[in-house]
Amino acid sequence: MFTPIKQTSISKKVIAQIKEMVSEGSLQKGDKLPSERKMAEKLQVSRTSVREALKELEIMGLIESRQGEGNFIKSNFEDILLDPFSTIFLIKESNAQEILELRHVIEKGSVALAAERIVDEELEEIEKILDTAKTSNSEDELVKLDVMFHYKIAQSSKNFLLQSILNAVSSLIEASIKDTRKNILIKEKHKEIIKQQHNNIYEALKNKDIKAAEKAMSDHLEFVNNEMKKSIKN
Amino acid sequence: MFTPIKQTSISKKVIAQIKEMVSEGSLQKGDKLPSERKMAEKLQVSRTSVREALKELEIMGLIESRQGEGNFIKSNFEDILLDPFSTIFLIKESNAQEILELRHVIEKGSVALAAERIVDEELEEIEKILDTAKTSNSEDELVKLDVMFHYKIAQSSKNFLLQSILNAVSSLIEASIKDTRKNILIKEKHKEIIKQQHNNIYEALKNKDIKAAEKAMSDHLEFVNNEMKKSIKN
Repeated sequence: MFTPIKQTSISKKVIAQIKEMVSEGSLQKGDKLPSERKMAEKLQVSRTSVREALKELEIMGLIESRQGEGNFIKSNFEDILLDPFSTIFLIKESNAQEILELRHVIEKGSVALAAERIVDEELEEIEKILDTAKTSNSEDELVKLDVMFHYKIAQSSKNFLLQSILNAVSSLIEASIKDTRKNILIKEKHKEIIKQQHNNIYEALKNKDIKAAEKAMSDHLEFVNNEMKKSIKN
Repeated sequence: MFTPIKQTSISKKVIAQIKEMVSEGSLQKGDKLPSERKMAEKLQVSRTSVREALKELEIMGLIESRQGEGNFIKSNFEDILLDPFSTIFLIKESNAQEILELRHVIEKGSVALAAERIVDEELEEIEKILDTAKTSNSEDELVKLDVMFHYKIAQSSKNFLLQSILNAVSSLIEASIKDTRKNILIKEKHKEIIKQQHNNIYEALKNKDIKAAEKAMSDHLEFVNNEMKKSIKN
């Protein structure tokens, strides 16, 4: 019996070929892909198949099409998880409480790995961030330094997946719990507590003490999350 | 001065309107969207703008277009993180070692929350899984039961984000470290060890002992990850 030859099975082959080229390195981050017409010619398939393949690769987050410029292998994957997390939120499969829990889990895991892997240069950068925060009176600067402090620790874990999740989580917290980071950081009674907590984390990292680092991060986030939960309710 | 009115700014407004409808609940999971033509009419914009908006929403993972059927609000978000994680892997921003670390972090976090939140019915299901595994001689069944055991614990955490990450991570491990779960589970000398470790996790959950649950899960995954790392190298 005849079975119709599906357009999609051809576009799947186009996808497989592009993925293979990325995997073996002949297509790299930021590379421009040939035009749809050229790809159709070279692969001897219809332009529709190429277009379908490109659309699917864009949905996968592997390529980006820039208006008037063409299609490129993406060059930056730091934000790749933000869209799916935002979607989960929008559709209400998850809520602010869960995102705070996820952050706790990820940061506790990151700081443990960081305690093993952090190098002197990274420790110095963290020290510098904390020093600047001690003397800063600008609310916006304090928020920025706080973000940097947590980001630097995730980076020191040398695990890109943990970093990417933390990036997405932080953006979501900023978006869904408006100004909370700021509100927590600037309260006078909080300032001292947080300074001390940050310092405990830094000391544990410096001593490469995994257990102490986990505990210090946990104490810190328990405090911060509790404050944040108050503002979710209000 | 005249500035050109961009097509994209109109499609952004279409996107915002659809997102708003999802957020307020007038569009729900699985709902079919009106046809492109109808949407263009109702919103009084061009069909191109509607098409652009739909494409972007598809990339966000909020809608899916089914060939010949139209566009739908997605109904299942369990696998939403698999594509972005696969892409990170394909482009080699991450590796098998990192994914094993991420799993460890997520499962340790999940089991801690599960120890607080698990209900009797879930405990019974986990017990049943472990009982079936004790008497099973089928390799494939053992693999399936092992997946179910870990999945059930993540579910008991009542945190959809942790579950989604674990889903994606597990699929990636299956795909990138071929047959490893099976190879580890069927070795006679491993069978007893793993049975004991699974039991320790179950007992800790039953006792709602957070620390013990974390430790039992950590011990288990340290063992399993070490075995897996051997097969990455070979």
